[in-house]
Amino acid sequence: MRSSQQKKCNGRAAYPGLFITFEGPEGSGKTTQCQHLAEWLQTKGQSVLITREPGGTPLAEAIRTLLLGHQPSSINQPEPREIITPACEAALVLAARAQHVSCTIIPALQKGRIVLCDRFFDSTLAYQGFGRGLNRKSLTQFNDFVTGGLTPTLTFLLDLPVKEGLQRRKASSHQNRMDQESLAFHERVRRGFSALARQDPRRWRTLDARQPPEPLAEEIINYIRPFIFKSLPGQTARATGGGL
Amino acid sequence: MRSSQQKKCNGRAAYPGLFITFEGPEGSGKTTQCQHLAEWLQTKGQSVLITREPGGTPLAEAIRTLLLGHQPSSINQPEPREIITPACEAALVLAARAQHVSCTIIPALQKGRIVLCDRFFDSTLAYQGFGRGLNRKSLTQFNDFVTGGLTPTLTFLLDLPVKEGLQRRKASSHQNRMDQESLAFHERVRRGFSALARQDPRRWRTLDARQPPEPLAEEIINYIRPFIFKSLPGQTARATGGGL
Repeated sequence: MRSSQQKKCNGRAAYPGLFITFEGPEGSGKTTQCQHLAEWLQTKGQSVLITREPGGTPLAEAIRTLLLGHQPSSINQPEPREIITPACEAALVLAARAQHVSCTIIPALQKGRIVLCDRFFDSTLAYQGFGRGLNRKSLTQFNDFVTGGLTPTLTFLLDLPVKEGLQRRKASSHQNRMDQESLAFHERVRRGFSALARQDPRRWRTLDARQPPEPLAEEIINYIRPFIFKSLPGQTARATGGGL
Repeated sequence: MRSSQQKKCNGRAAYPGLFITFEGPEGSGKTTQCQHLAEWLQTKGQSVLITREPGGTPLAEAIRTLLLGHQPSSINQPEPREIITPACEAALVLAARAQHVSCTIIPALQKGRIVLCDRFFDSTLAYQGFGRGLNRKSLTQFNDFVTGGLTPTLTFLLDLPVKEGLQRRKASSHQNRMDQESLAFHERVRRGFSALARQDPRRWRTLDARQPPEPLAEEIINYIRPFIFKSLPGQTARATGGGL
């Protein structure tokens, strides 16, 4: 799309910043862990941008509202509502990402910032691909077309059993349209994430999200420490599969 | 996407209805001509659906609002506004079309109705492809991915010089974000439409939209008459290049 977005070398973005994503099923604690990690990085003097998908710009957040609906009131008081087709859902997610990558993520990476993103393209493969059954090769092509193929350097998969995640969500005020999907759908999404993580172990780090937030945050910090102190500025390191 | 959407045979949709689209630059009178033709068809006892893109369902209309902005007040009182990237614009158009095709157009065609659509995929090629410079082969692939490749049986190109169209728009209350684009952009769009029409003369009928609405409506009716009386139900005819 934009030549500056197309720069990547063996999956590593050619920007001075560091692009880290958090993935996982509903209720896995991604948002909390993003926040924890950002705070730790800031105490180490790093410039951090926390962002999320769908969203990350005013327009992309407006697209998020279309995608996820006005919750939770509409869930408590159901009303006739147009059902979003899988194809429309996928294209809306990609529209939001196109805007997010161009206007928020790449400018931050160009400035050498660490970008922590709550969901990215892997969620599209997991939800619209594995979950909805859309062709994953086509989704990848479409994604690369609108983003130039920007790929995170590190991705944390916060994995936990579907029922446990959904129960956590029920206890919170953050339910959305996706939470209303069937257990079978969420199981496909979870298996999708695991399959993606197995395919690229250099980028992915799978963590047990059943544990309490504090030890999980510690595990993330321990894993990320070498990337931060060896990689910035002029990030050249990549995951080597090990921990600290 | 859906197997029912994937049925097409040499560009002719395998539905009992008839799918007719109106294309052309801003101010070419497509909306007026859709309305004229619908009224004439109804006097002939045909069941007609008038629809438009982006739009045609509540969700797709909401996407249209994101795409075109809240006009004309924001044009008269400009304010800082996030600029939509070409990739986001294209994906939003495709998202709206995915929903429109599945929820509005195909159900109407399945019932044997005549669908008159004000803009369709050719506008995506003209505006986002020829106008914005996005890759047209990729746009076609993503369009086919989200719509199953549904193609109109007939497309009217209402052609007129760019300046004349934009002047007509300025005199109306229907201006939107696209009207604010440069003359060079609109010239590329117009040339794009002409190129598309030349590539598939069996589907396209180019008309001189500088003429007043009444003779233009008459020309459209004369061209379409044989399709209506030979084609429905169980539409088998196609354009043969001639008029009445």
